[in-house]
Amino acid sequence: MDIMDRTIKNISGLDAKLMTSAKGRLDDLTKPLGSLGRLEELAMTLVGITGKEYPPMKNKVVFTIAGDHGVTDEGISAYPKAVTAQMVYNFLKGGAGINVLARHAGARVVVVDIGVAEDLKPDHNLIIKKISYGTKNMAKGPAMTREEAIKAIEAGIDIFDAEFEKGIDIVCTGDMGIGNTTPSSAITAVFTGRPVEEITGKGTGIDEKALLHKVEVIKKALKVNQPDPDDAIDVLAKVGGFEIAGLVGIILAAASKRVPVVMDGFISGAAALIAYKIEPRAKNYIIAGHCSVEKGHRIILEELGLKPILDLNLRLGEGTGAALALCIVEAATKILAEMATFQSAKVSKKIG
Amino acid sequence: MDIMDRTIKNISGLDAKLMTSAKGRLDDLTKPLGSLGRLEELAMTLVGITGKEYPPMKNKVVFTIAGDHGVTDEGISAYPKAVTAQMVYNFLKGGAGINVLARHAGARVVVVDIGVAEDLKPDHNLIIKKISYGTKNMAKGPAMTREEAIKAIEAGIDIFDAEFEKGIDIVCTGDMGIGNTTPSSAITAVFTGRPVEEITGKGTGIDEKALLHKVEVIKKALKVNQPDPDDAIDVLAKVGGFEIAGLVGIILAAASKRVPVVMDGFISGAAALIAYKIEPRAKNYIIAGHCSVEKGHRIILEELGLKPILDLNLRLGEGTGAALALCIVEAATKILAEMATFQSAKVSKKIG
Repeated sequence: MDIMDRTIKNISGLDAKLMTSAKGRLDDLTKPLGSLGRLEELAMTLVGITGKEYPPMKNKVVFTIAGDHGVTDEGISAYPKAVTAQMVYNFLKGGAGINVLARHAGARVVVVDIGVAEDLKPDHNLIIKKISYGTKNMAKGPAMTREEAIKAIEAGIDIFDAEFEKGIDIVCTGDMGIGNTTPSSAITAVFTGRPVEEITGKGTGIDEKALLHKVEVIKKALKVNQPDPDDAIDVLAKVGGFEIAGLVGIILAAASKRVPVVMDGFISGAAALIAYKIEPRAKNYIIAGHCSVEKGHRIILEELGLKPILDLNLRLGEGTGAALALCIVEAATKILAEMATFQSAKVSKKIG
Repeated sequence: MDIMDRTIKNISGLDAKLMTSAKGRLDDLTKPLGSLGRLEELAMTLVGITGKEYPPMKNKVVFTIAGDHGVTDEGISAYPKAVTAQMVYNFLKGGAGINVLARHAGARVVVVDIGVAEDLKPDHNLIIKKISYGTKNMAKGPAMTREEAIKAIEAGIDIFDAEFEKGIDIVCTGDMGIGNTTPSSAITAVFTGRPVEEITGKGTGIDEKALLHKVEVIKKALKVNQPDPDDAIDVLAKVGGFEIAGLVGIILAAASKRVPVVMDGFISGAAALIAYKIEPRAKNYIIAGHCSVEKGHRIILEELGLKPILDLNLRLGEGTGAALALCIVEAATKILAEMATFQSAKVSKKIG
């Protein structure tokens, strides 16, 4: 708990003064006022987050955190549980969607086993922080103990802090865990009070009948566990997941170090909700990379007041949507740093 | 007219057979079926356009074509006409928005003077294809003669063909021309039949009063010239612009060579409308890079049945929105080429 408390205490507000001067610089660039729209907003946000006049984008890191879910026993996923471990090996070999999109963005992928249901073969690119061999079945009782949830958040903080030593300018959150849209829907239901039906989607691709069953399983988990919406750790422990907890740690740690967080889809969104409930100021450090097909994600974005950069019907997870958004985020910093001003380019200003 | 006719004759349909096999390959990759949404659609489209199993993205070219507009005499723009030439110099020095975003995307910018109102200093990076010193004031008569309009389209074709020799895998359309949202609104009005008010925006940033005046000027131009909606060249000549005509040439030439065209905002959209009316099959080669703030652009996208990749409140032109979308388009080709299959990565497939 010490590590978490210390991290939270270091989260402060954005640098409003620097944001104002960035606005002034943007207005001097050779373009009609505000004509680069969200790129200009993003540039200002990045200045406010980093506290730097020209936010660097050299070290881009995607944290893809993997964990298993006991609730898969209820048959809520289209894929077998074994896929979590198989996909971790795919990440390590560089063949997954996130590897392709991270390479494209010039980002490195940090792969973490925080709760995969089997022992993974050691690999110099795999960080093992296993809290347990998957969560317990939340339809029958708490997914984790409170101690496990805190331990998993602190594992996320540790992982971030270790990578921070190597250099991090921006972070993407990513997840892998067969069944993890189920806990994400449960978390979203607790914090938004919305009916489970409204925030539960087809995940990796179940059919209509399986979707109805998934909704019932989530309702049962909420009934059995009675998570307390005023206690984010309680919610996380009872109906969350290890990879979600790890991402909460990543978000809190990044915010404490003034590092921007590009949020991926629904599972990352559930982690962002928890981080926000633990420390509301954490939200200021989050940039929504995209809006997922998974319908609960749009509701999380509304709840957090975040507008996604991309809306491309993605629903893969792993950090893919966030990594794809990185090229837009980086473009925003280049606009700020590289464009000529009206004065330097000798271009006439607006009439009148 | 010969060059144009020859170009149009070479525009054929997409390669449906290759698109089907690309779909098969996408479905074999280690991700839930269709979970990369529009990236997968884009990959298929690019395969169909190029007729290549793995569309290359090595040579990316932005054509930024500049021309002036006699209708600026009516006071329809927020910036003085001299800015067109000043911005061309800015492009050549690499300080404009398009330079920054093209560099970011790894694209080269080809700058063309097709009708700037003054003689520009020679520069080895400037292509001079000046048809005239700006168009005439369309509120008083035709902006160009029919011959000039055809000459400008053919100049666009020539420019594309010359660059094609150096290698082009994908093209972005870009424009520069103070006043050019006015002809673009006029063109959109002719082809969509929508009221001028609905398709006329504030361009670079005029106020409400000036917007009302701009609408009146466009209505007057349409009344004075009576452009024939069944004759795209007539519309282009009477209420168009040289840079719009040049972009029509770029689009037709790219389509004839099976090169994908990433369309920028409203002015590029007006050019795409004309190209489509000249040869409907040209539309298949166009990818909408983004949706502009300029409200007529959304209507053009609807008319062409195109869904934009980005929607980031941009309204700069120059090719900026298209260049920004390039990183998403390129990501789509990498997904197709670089991801592992279920078999190669030994990942279990869907249950049942």
